[in-house]
Amino acid sequence: MKTLLKNAQIINFTDNKINVIKNGCVAINNEYITYVGISAPAGEFDTVKDMRGSILIPGLYNCHTHSPMTLLRGIGSDLPLDKWLFDTVFPVEDKLTADDIEAGTYLALMEMVASGTVSFSDMYFEPERTCEAVGKAGLKANISRPVQCFDPQERPEDSYRIRQSLELFDKYHNSFGGRVLVDFCIHAEYTCDEKTTRYYSDRCRERKGNMHIHISETEKEHRQCIEKYGKTPTQWFDSLGAFDSRAFAAHCVELTENDMDIMKARGVSIVHNPSSNMKLGSGFAPVERFIEKGINVALGTDGAASNNNLDMLEEMHLASVIHNGYHRDATVMSADKIIKLATVNGALLQGRESCGNIKEGYRADIVALSVDNPNMMPCLDPVALTVYSAGRGDVLMTMCDGKILYENGEFLTIDKEKVFYDVRKAIERLY
Amino acid sequence: MKTLLKNAQIINFTDNKINVIKNGCVAINNEYITYVGISAPAGEFDTVKDMRGSILIPGLYNCHTHSPMTLLRGIGSDLPLDKWLFDTVFPVEDKLTADDIEAGTYLALMEMVASGTVSFSDMYFEPERTCEAVGKAGLKANISRPVQCFDPQERPEDSYRIRQSLELFDKYHNSFGGRVLVDFCIHAEYTCDEKTTRYYSDRCRERKGNMHIHISETEKEHRQCIEKYGKTPTQWFDSLGAFDSRAFAAHCVELTENDMDIMKARGVSIVHNPSSNMKLGSGFAPVERFIEKGINVALGTDGAASNNNLDMLEEMHLASVIHNGYHRDATVMSADKIIKLATVNGALLQGRESCGNIKEGYRADIVALSVDNPNMMPCLDPVALTVYSAGRGDVLMTMCDGKILYENGEFLTIDKEKVFYDVRKAIERLY
Repeated sequence: MKTLLKNAQIINFTDNKINVIKNGCVAINNEYITYVGISAPAGEFDTVKDMRGSILIPGLYNCHTHSPMTLLRGIGSDLPLDKWLFDTVFPVEDKLTADDIEAGTYLALMEMVASGTVSFSDMYFEPERTCEAVGKAGLKANISRPVQCFDPQERPEDSYRIRQSLELFDKYHNSFGGRVLVDFCIHAEYTCDEKTTRYYSDRCRERKGNMHIHISETEKEHRQCIEKYGKTPTQWFDSLGAFDSRAFAAHCVELTENDMDIMKARGVSIVHNPSSNMKLGSGFAPVERFIEKGINVALGTDGAASNNNLDMLEEMHLASVIHNGYHRDATVMSADKIIKLATVNGALLQGRESCGNIKEGYRADIVALSVDNPNMMPCLDPVALTVYSAGRGDVLMTMCDGKILYENGEFLTIDKEKVFYDVRKAIERLY
Repeated sequence: MKTLLKNAQIINFTDNKINVIKNGCVAINNEYITYVGISAPAGEFDTVKDMRGSILIPGLYNCHTHSPMTLLRGIGSDLPLDKWLFDTVFPVEDKLTADDIEAGTYLALMEMVASGTVSFSDMYFEPERTCEAVGKAGLKANISRPVQCFDPQERPEDSYRIRQSLELFDKYHNSFGGRVLVDFCIHAEYTCDEKTTRYYSDRCRERKGNMHIHISETEKEHRQCIEKYGKTPTQWFDSLGAFDSRAFAAHCVELTENDMDIMKARGVSIVHNPSSNMKLGSGFAPVERFIEKGINVALGTDGAASNNNLDMLEEMHLASVIHNGYHRDATVMSADKIIKLATVNGALLQGRESCGNIKEGYRADIVALSVDNPNMMPCLDPVALTVYSAGRGDVLMTMCDGKILYENGEFLTIDKEKVFYDVRKAIERLY
């Protein structure tokens, strides 16, 4: 199956620097991009799509979320963090069935492809359902079952959470043509203990896994870890082997300079979640310092319960402006940096080779944004438009591995009516 | 012309408290709302619209913008403030013709109605074109010609800017059935002088005008005013009579407690512009203090050159989350407060009676948001959904004075193709 996208403005990266091709073509052969340039390549195509009036960007990577939490969207908003979590979120989560998880995941997948996301890093229960849903719907994801330990007597060998995580890895890692990967995941320092973290980190290293962790999201978490262990969460995880594998840490609002140096030295990536950090009052992660230090930084939405959506274009916008405001300097962030965080860096974090860019030999993960909507005119600077002006309403097409998942408002790989029916049924039972 | 909107979820305010009517009706007779309630009222209707699957909110008020600056969208992004303004914005503005202004205004009107805005407060040159465009397109606006003075020798009586402002007032104030109002406007302290401010403020008071001013947007402006006059910008304007009329101040990032007390005592409203303040690195206006003091606070996008769009739903989202992040407290802002800022408070700022709410006897300014999009499901809390989850892509309908301006992606009062043609022609000439 050969496809040609022509007459588009194309945003991509060469040696980590952003380019704009003003009137270009992308040729695609099955899952891969075979050509990117100004003049159309020779050869026959099964489909030729005229993309006049659109900007093509690499598909977006949402590197930290809890996709089934779409079912909890909006509950307990504006409560203090503890009340929100204990009085509203946990009681609902307690009632979630595997079927609910599947319905919530599909709703999340619809929301993601409709806002230009092709891949995400997920952390939630019943992850088999999420793996199946992602596989069938045609996206990419790094899916994990979070490990916790609340019983100091529990032997890690006996932990059902670790067992589920390892079973998931054996069953689904590198499935669906490599689109579905399984990550390891320790939920956080405050929900795990030393023996469990050490044991599980060793299993991750043995299997060459990818480790997903919440680190230093709030001042309270960070301070209490120091009080308990005499170590920051970063130091604590490092000392227990959690960074012996390729690892990535969500939030990192409170990192010290020393923590950042550890992250850099150990090759740990960081996921910045601006909506969630702002809404929950966690604070401003020092993202500009992470970048200066050479740490690989990506972006994430966190779950829909604390965001309250899964819109990476919104996340890119927030990340692009709030740090300028915080530092009172219009030059702290720039649009080109932000697009790189949401694409190239996300693919690197997920351990996906030949992904995250519109480039010959890369996977054909491409999003088309309309520049024929009033908010996208005039198109003087496609990079600035993408970050500062675009929204979900401008997404014309989302393609993953050469397959169109969403186009002109239609979902091509997901049965919208079935998902809506399943979600309504779940909601009736849960609330 | 009688219209009934039925089966909708309705968000409105009673005695400044938010309500949600779960399955309600709104009856409209020409420009006015004649009924809001659960059961359908008796009587015949020319049109009955089934609004199942939507939330009705009062039309949004964008209380500080420079609408024709859509033509400058995206230029000079990520430059330091001075370079952006002097090297990129001013040279283009210098070339703008009245026809350009008209094209840029129409583009702004399209963008605004497509994102749920029914009324705006504008400050720009060639305002006659803006008045005509707003009048014809069916929105509401308070339009002003900014007064500046760069020549200490110039007598205010001879200022062509003041002459234009007064002529505009006489010609267009309260035109197009009261939809178009003309405001007075002093650009800012740093672009005006004492004699001009005093003279013009007196003219405003005589005519019972509404005064629109930029105040304390940046630390530099605020500090330099104190250095020059021994007064903050707020104190300076107050001492010269600018607050003797109903006045409103944009930005106010740097207000002191004393400034706030003056604003409260003189009945001055404040417009918060979070995107612009963040993007340009101006900082965090103490909005929560303004509200605590009982000052009337509204929201604005500022111009598309510094935002870079005119999307009030995005502005509401930013305003709802950034102050929680800044104060590290999830309870600083709440969704119900934010909706009030964007509706009821905006109408009060503009001096529009019986506007800004979905209420019997009020103007029929109503926006419908879809709850059938994946990012708006489930609909557990319509208020939280509106602020934290909705985007421009969820706007189904924008109605102003009982007339539908935008519905299902179509512009009913603006010739889209003509506007796009005019904008492209202007852009070719300008860049």
